[in-house]
Amino acid sequence: MNDAYRRLKDRFARIALLGEAQAMLHWDAAAVMPPGGAESRGEQLAALAGLAHELMTSPAMASDLAEASAEGEWDAANLALMRHAQSRATALPTALVEASARANSACETVWREARAKSDFALVAPYLAEVVKLQRESAAALATITGLSPYDSLMDSYQRGIGAADVEPIFAAYEAFLADALPRAEAIQAAKPAPLPLPGPFPAATQKALCREMAERVGLDFTHARLDESLHPFCGGIPADVRITTRYDEANAAQALLGVLHESGHALYERGLPAEWARQPVGEAAGMAAHESQSLIVEMQASRSDAFLGFIGPRLHAAFGGAAEPWAPGNLARHWRRVARGFIRVDADELTYPAHVILRFRLERALIGGDLAVADLPGAWNEGFSRLLGLTPPDDAQGCLQDIHWHDGAFGYFPSYTLGAMAAAQLMRAARAALPGLDDSLAQGDFTPLRDWLREKVHGQGARLGFQDLLRHATGKPLDPADFISHLTERYLQG
Amino acid sequence: MNDAYRRLKDRFARIALLGEAQAMLHWDAAAVMPPGGAESRGEQLAALAGLAHELMTSPAMASDLAEASAEGEWDAANLALMRHAQSRATALPTALVEASARANSACETVWREARAKSDFALVAPYLAEVVKLQRESAAALATITGLSPYDSLMDSYQRGIGAADVEPIFAAYEAFLADALPRAEAIQAAKPAPLPLPGPFPAATQKALCREMAERVGLDFTHARLDESLHPFCGGIPADVRITTRYDEANAAQALLGVLHESGHALYERGLPAEWARQPVGEAAGMAAHESQSLIVEMQASRSDAFLGFIGPRLHAAFGGAAEPWAPGNLARHWRRVARGFIRVDADELTYPAHVILRFRLERALIGGDLAVADLPGAWNEGFSRLLGLTPPDDAQGCLQDIHWHDGAFGYFPSYTLGAMAAAQLMRAARAALPGLDDSLAQGDFTPLRDWLREKVHGQGARLGFQDLLRHATGKPLDPADFISHLTERYLQG
Repeated sequence: MNDAYRRLKDRFARIALLGEAQAMLHWDAAAVMPPGGAESRGEQLAALAGLAHELMTSPAMASDLAEASAEGEWDAANLALMRHAQSRATALPTALVEASARANSACETVWREARAKSDFALVAPYLAEVVKLQRESAAALATITGLSPYDSLMDSYQRGIGAADVEPIFAAYEAFLADALPRAEAIQAAKPAPLPLPGPFPAATQKALCREMAERVGLDFTHARLDESLHPFCGGIPADVRITTRYDEANAAQALLGVLHESGHALYERGLPAEWARQPVGEAAGMAAHESQSLIVEMQASRSDAFLGFIGPRLHAAFGGAAEPWAPGNLARHWRRVARGFIRVDADELTYPAHVILRFRLERALIGGDLAVADLPGAWNEGFSRLLGLTPPDDAQGCLQDIHWHDGAFGYFPSYTLGAMAAAQLMRAARAALPGLDDSLAQGDFTPLRDWLREKVHGQGARLGFQDLLRHATGKPLDPADFISHLTERYLQG
Repeated sequence: MNDAYRRLKDRFARIALLGEAQAMLHWDAAAVMPPGGAESRGEQLAALAGLAHELMTSPAMASDLAEASAEGEWDAANLALMRHAQSRATALPTALVEASARANSACETVWREARAKSDFALVAPYLAEVVKLQRESAAALATITGLSPYDSLMDSYQRGIGAADVEPIFAAYEAFLADALPRAEAIQAAKPAPLPLPGPFPAATQKALCREMAERVGLDFTHARLDESLHPFCGGIPADVRITTRYDEANAAQALLGVLHESGHALYERGLPAEWARQPVGEAAGMAAHESQSLIVEMQASRSDAFLGFIGPRLHAAFGGAAEPWAPGNLARHWRRVARGFIRVDADELTYPAHVILRFRLERALIGGDLAVADLPGAWNEGFSRLLGLTPPDDAQGCLQDIHWHDGAFGYFPSYTLGAMAAAQLMRAARAALPGLDDSLAQGDFTPLRDWLREKVHGQGARLGFQDLLRHATGKPLDPADFISHLTERYLQG
């Protein structure tokens, strides 16, 4: 470790502190800010981002990176991540970054109207400009990443996996789904309909329950908060992680399952290696890795037979009424219901990947220049119909439903399904390593799972890319077979 | 207006945005942050302050300031304030700034223990170090301000008034008080004791009332929040101002009067000239000016006979019980009670200045080298006894009671009483300009007062120093006679 590397650690810590300030201001904007603060907040965030960019692209940073050397696995990985971050930041000309920010912002604004009116033509020219600039950015990034343009975009969300890995995995899933979906539907149809859960569900009761369950998952509220926001999220920083949800008094499960999901994200942040705080290697490994942590808690553990046996009586005690609707079997019929639909965010575990596969293929074609924005609605509807056997009745329920592309996020969508698959793979490995895991979950005790994840995933920071992280934790790279086994067991056992 | 001045406006806007981020993070730390976030928060704030300091002291800033020219009253004042801020920032060597930060922090920590144990000897060596560094800072600042060392410290809290103005004003007050205090006590003793206010006072009821009264004062909650914190304060930024209070269910008035006080501060921030936002001339004129705005709302308007006639029935309706305790005359006996005591923050309006006069004289002597830290307890007790005729039983109720000196704040204390006096002077001028002012207050309507303050004070930003601001608003510099008239009317009419 030489002086240049020591200086770099200080430089990156300073940039990370600007990022921490931004994270807290983002939380504030979503959770507590009065509407009149929005304009100033935008200016504050832009100023912090601008300063961080200047620090990252300064000549002193470049000369320290040129001189730096570091020994040891963690320091070497840290230095490599520093170089990666700086070369990504310098690869994009300022004019392109600013043009993208403007184009994304303009497109997002028009998209809100276009979605409300289901009028793709309204947003199409704005989206075309976004795509054009994303293609330029991808090409510029490709010169320094050594990856394809599309993979260079993916890399900014999740390092260590690319389209060449993803395509066959998604193809395998598509083949599985073609057979599995009608079978799962038939099995479901042959069973009795779920008994309705007897509401209403007072917000205060839900809130207390959410807090208790977050604590059971492992969240320590001396280092965390639970608040409300329109779009639930996990924000803040590792030492002060902030999750949000929203309470619907007609729905017993939405807030609770949402909190379990965000608690998985929060646990990842809390478990990052403290000795590498504010260094690139001390961050989470990426968005797919992050999603694996929310989904292992929400989908794998919390909807398992074992945990349903625990949570059912707790819900009954909290909300009262007859006991039958809260029986684990009935809860499972609610919380594991399969239903084809047009909207990704409402999708069940089995069909969700089809939504992602469609977007992955379309965005790859858009960035590759193989699909024009004008042809997007047609390509969407055709692809959707092939994957799920339904044709969206309008673009609001089709290619206009998500904010992502309209806000300039290309290469992000695969993270959802990579995360879901990784969650299944990690859960299988955890069950193998911890024979009493389901007994613990049946007691509402997440401790063994949490401790295993801390060691295998959280504590690894960003030392390893996605595939290497899975190799480290499970002995193999991403293998869709584990997810397919999980789905088979959960949805295809008559 | 030349290019250099245009660039300076951008530079100062950027520094101001860092300040806005700091303001929001300070609010967060006081109002909502879980305790585990404290250490990271300290790092974030230090990083933002460090970056702001670097921007302020950069060679580019200095060369732009050397080249800049600006015409027009506001631009000229803005440029002068830029030069003032930059020369203050560059006058202090980094080593001195860092040594002060460390000494203040160490002293503050030990002070908490010393106050708890009432053991001045414990903190004395730490305070001596703080004073030594404050004297060095004052001397360094004096070389660029052209003021005395003590005035150079005062200047960092309130521009445009110095010890030579303050001393005769305080001497006049001391003379007034020697006669007025025993008379006020005798008058009070001759009246019936106040009827107790019938509690308890549910926090939720208090909160709704506080919010309503803040709105009456003029706070718009699309640009503001009201929260709880251990030490009430007004924070945030002009577009998103955040006041706090705390609710004691045994005390009907503390939270409400506190909110009225903080609403006065908040109204000042909200009324600053929007077209000069994030420029030095668009800030508040200083701490004494700020205190004048909180006190004109809390002490002048809200404890006036007119407003007591409005708030009494509202409190009765909110809290119930018999009507007599809520009669304006009885409320006045609670909210305008004179009582000599040792603790500044508990002091009434009449004796409060004595607490400030003592501190002003002692801190001036400490900075001037005329008083050694070791002699502080003796000097305190002697001065206190002369001003208020009581001798503190221990140092916890004497020179250890306030955080200010132990945290390195010298030159701040006068602001409290300068603000109280300015509030009386402004209220008198407002009454002269607005003959219906008390009729409005009797209806719970602050609009005329608020509009007058917006024009005369808030909208002036930092264009004028303290004395010039008062000249602008009232036609004369600070004149203790108006405060003395106010007190005479309120406390000395048999």
